[in-house]
Amino acid sequence: MTLSPDELWRITQRGVSNIIVREEFVKLLQEGKPLRLKMGFDPSRPDIHLGHVVGLRKLRQLQDLGHQLILIVGDWTAQIGDPSGRSATRPMLTHEEVMENAQSYLRQFFKVVDRDRAQVVYQSEWFGKFSLADVIGLTGRFTVAQFLERDDFAKRFAEHRPIAITELLYPLLQAYDSVAIQSDVEFGGTDQMFNLLVGRELQEMMGQRAQQCFLMPILVGTDGVQKMSKSLDNYVGVEEAPDDMFGKIMSLPDEFIVSYFEYLTDAPETELEDMSRS
Amino acid sequence: MTLSPDELWRITQRGVSNIIVREEFVKLLQEGKPLRLKMGFDPSRPDIHLGHVVGLRKLRQLQDLGHQLILIVGDWTAQIGDPSGRSATRPMLTHEEVMENAQSYLRQFFKVVDRDRAQVVYQSEWFGKFSLADVIGLTGRFTVAQFLERDDFAKRFAEHRPIAITELLYPLLQAYDSVAIQSDVEFGGTDQMFNLLVGRELQEMMGQRAQQCFLMPILVGTDGVQKMSKSLDNYVGVEEAPDDMFGKIMSLPDEFIVSYFEYLTDAPETELEDMSRS
Repeated sequence: MTLSPDELWRITQRGVSNIIVREEFVKLLQEGKPLRLKMGFDPSRPDIHLGHVVGLRKLRQLQDLGHQLILIVGDWTAQIGDPSGRSATRPMLTHEEVMENAQSYLRQFFKVVDRDRAQVVYQSEWFGKFSLADVIGLTGRFTVAQFLERDDFAKRFAEHRPIAITELLYPLLQAYDSVAIQSDVEFGGTDQMFNLLVGRELQEMMGQRAQQCFLMPILVGTDGVQKMSKSLDNYVGVEEAPDDMFGKIMSLPDEFIVSYFEYLTDAPETELEDMSRS
Repeated sequence: MTLSPDELWRITQRGVSNIIVREEFVKLLQEGKPLRLKMGFDPSRPDIHLGHVVGLRKLRQLQDLGHQLILIVGDWTAQIGDPSGRSATRPMLTHEEVMENAQSYLRQFFKVVDRDRAQVVYQSEWFGKFSLADVIGLTGRFTVAQFLERDDFAKRFAEHRPIAITELLYPLLQAYDSVAIQSDVEFGGTDQMFNLLVGRELQEMMGQRAQQCFLMPILVGTDGVQKMSKSLDNYVGVEEAPDDMFGKIMSLPDEFIVSYFEYLTDAPETELEDMSRS
């Protein structure tokens, strides 16, 4: 089954920021063999809003073509802190908290994603038995300077703001997830590019085929100014009441309507073009 | 038993580069309670020469005052590489290699150090069961910038030479050794100062009294130019034949004779002063 140019465009261009390496990904897609799609989630933040849905819809499109999703519950990386620049490690979530948050996340997640072509795994399956030798095996493969090139690290380092040594482990652990599940394609926001690329490198170093990196665009929030985020209160949660969703969406400045339709609906291209003109 | 000013001088000044914190160490010494003296050794380099003996004699003096030596066989740090700036991790020594090198080291070591007041432990006793959570617990306490201040790291970083992320773990593991054995005093060359200070900090963070750091001077080699080192072939090994030792010592430029006597013998001060004058 070969995808038509239109289909290919819909999958690999619409609502996509970048694919690394696009030509390789298209080739894999056209070969038609089931691909292992990797997505990780932070169980300390179990809420899904429309900003996340952009990527989940992409996963769903690929599932509908027969590909398999592996969703990783990041119960280990969650305690290190997210890669967006907040420092300091957090206490490890208890097993109960992780399970509760995962439940809540999955209930929202499967509103968009196909449950039948999805497998849920926990990082603790591999990191729970990780030894010091395993850590040394990972940390020996990359240099401090390489990692300090990540945008947010570079910025904090230059500004003399602290970066805990643990934070250098974050991209390594996320990369090792790709090895553990033999990921073919990893999904993340554009701010995840560095981590996804470390996954590519580590897989190659460890004798696997390097994953493709599928980078999703950042959705602007309903304020029309900042990225959609729960903490900025400019978000539309997937479990909100329809009336609330409608009200919030109506508050979005008109100029962003087209991108919302482009990223979040199946409205055909011609319709988007009509909207742009009007 | 309080030490006389002369005795105190002999122990804490003669053949000593620095003690951090000297006043605290002197106080502990005068209290007379048995102290736990920590020394680590790299089992990938089992040869002892006079450069090492400077420190071993100091250990012996303290043993003779009733203090207890804990010698740590660094079977884990050995694979990361030593802190003098050589990069890249090394393969883990096999258990047989470690045991063989340790045997050879101890045979030389106990020519100077008192076997009856010494205990030999292996890092694998604690690092063999170290988990990823333990690693995160250590790495979360220090920042990348703090560690890049270590002289050799700072130099390599500035010169764009690679520093493996693993190398940041080295000072942490060495510091954790101090916690594991509840060290009161750690011994090392002046080039070890950073690592020894991390040990102090970590002990305090983990609720122990911070160890004292006993920094030994670097002995010049028989060429009178560079530090004594096996690789520079300017060394006198402790197991060499007396004639060979004599020959090598005779080749030392005269100006260094006094410091050899000061660091490596019990020749009284008055004798050293006579030598200096002649």
